[in-house]
Amino acid sequence: MILIKIGGGKNINWNYIAEDIVQLRKKEEIIVVHGASETRDKIAKQLKTPTKTVISPSGISSVLTDQNAIDIFLMTYSGLINKKIVAVFQKNGINAIGLSGVDGKLFQAKQKNNILIKKGRKTKLVTSNLTGRVEVINIQLLHLLLSNNYTPVLCPPAISYEDNIVNVDNDWTTAVLAGALTINKIIVLFEAPGMLKNYQDEKSVIPLIDKNELNTMKPFAHGRMAKKVLGALRAFELGVKTIYWGDGRVKNPIINLLLGKGTIIK
Amino acid sequence: MILIKIGGGKNINWNYIAEDIVQLRKKEEIIVVHGASETRDKIAKQLKTPTKTVISPSGISSVLTDQNAIDIFLMTYSGLINKKIVAVFQKNGINAIGLSGVDGKLFQAKQKNNILIKKGRKTKLVTSNLTGRVEVINIQLLHLLLSNNYTPVLCPPAISYEDNIVNVDNDWTTAVLAGALTINKIIVLFEAPGMLKNYQDEKSVIPLIDKNELNTMKPFAHGRMAKKVLGALRAFELGVKTIYWGDGRVKNPIINLLLGKGTIIK
Repeated sequence: MILIKIGGGKNINWNYIAEDIVQLRKKEEIIVVHGASETRDKIAKQLKTPTKTVISPSGISSVLTDQNAIDIFLMTYSGLINKKIVAVFQKNGINAIGLSGVDGKLFQAKQKNNILIKKGRKTKLVTSNLTGRVEVINIQLLHLLLSNNYTPVLCPPAISYEDNIVNVDNDWTTAVLAGALTINKIIVLFEAPGMLKNYQDEKSVIPLIDKNELNTMKPFAHGRMAKKVLGALRAFELGVKTIYWGDGRVKNPIINLLLGKGTIIK
Repeated sequence: MILIKIGGGKNINWNYIAEDIVQLRKKEEIIVVHGASETRDKIAKQLKTPTKTVISPSGISSVLTDQNAIDIFLMTYSGLINKKIVAVFQKNGINAIGLSGVDGKLFQAKQKNNILIKKGRKTKLVTSNLTGRVEVINIQLLHLLLSNNYTPVLCPPAISYEDNIVNVDNDWTTAVLAGALTINKIIVLFEAPGMLKNYQDEKSVIPLIDKNELNTMKPFAHGRMAKKVLGALRAFELGVKTIYWGDGRVKNPIINLLLGKGTIIK
């Protein structure tokens, strides 16, 4: 089984991804997890409630999530983008089913009621933040769909143990999902040709990273890459053997990545 | 099996509905189909592309659907409202899964490329309208979920034979769904206590309608009720025995409706 995690950038080419999945599915079961951050931010702005990000004391940025942000999250991740991906997959002959973490309690999360954020030099406590961390996966549901020839296309949000809809980090969720399904390989596609030594130079791809040295890569992890590093570290802890980071904008994004065109971490 | 179709009004009480479904599920399998029209119209307005309705030559109003309208449809039906219902159901102990008609080609529709609309006294042809009529249901997927103890929560849009996402009428879809699953009973909940003789008087409920006289009820079918009459006529053609129209805003909406509090058509 291969787990493919695809970022929420607007230049991701879903047709190219679908074409590769058609090939890969002949040999292996596929599960897709996707984001929709760029669409979420666009719609949030149009609705005059722009996405607010906060920085944790350890320097990781995340989205401040109130009920309105959850609504926009549901609209863009579980609604607009999830169903558009499913339709592109169907057009390519992949019998896709789109589910959020709420459906059948697919992604169950421990809700973080309070989070610490940095405000300048101070640390502030934010209460009633609707975020969480995924801990339990409904793998029975995934096996049920896979064994009946469906390709699951999954996205956040998740559902908390108290049955609240909560925002969760997608890279962390992917790691937990891989662990629960004992998956060896994770493909991660985004809008860059891999992990870059210099984030402004697309030619500076780091081709190979020893998983035991992934921690030392944090200085190169610009912007959203920081969470990908954390997700990857968690995935290795949970038994994943190889993670591939590569470009979701190009022809044969997955097949070429498996052949080494991108960053391989093992 | 009971099919429950619930309108998209903002005063529908999903907790009350969930409480009744918990009781009913002890004896029968349940499938829910829902709308989200009021949320769709609200978000469409906020995004400065308000929902446009057109009138067919036979006097039936429907939504003019371009790509932008499909996007808003996906956001509000398949995203926001579908997942919120699933979470409310989960909170009540119902293991709900939300799916759109696109997922696993659940609702396959024949796309109407051109529609005729009335413009004053004239009739005009509208091309490239992304609407369709559902003809094929993926009943294998529904049986798979039901037999594994999941409660499907379904909504439009549908997917066309060409794999385009298309807007479809929900009452018609419900009828086709009932036919495909050989369901005898359809419960239809909306924001009125039943079919009203005088649409402004909630006390004027018509308690019983002979299905063979349903056509004569068209003069009482104000606004969105016109499509409910068409959907009901189609459902009876497809073998449904009894349709219940009742109030989705009140305590025990389904149980009381089955006991006769509303409009029964048979």
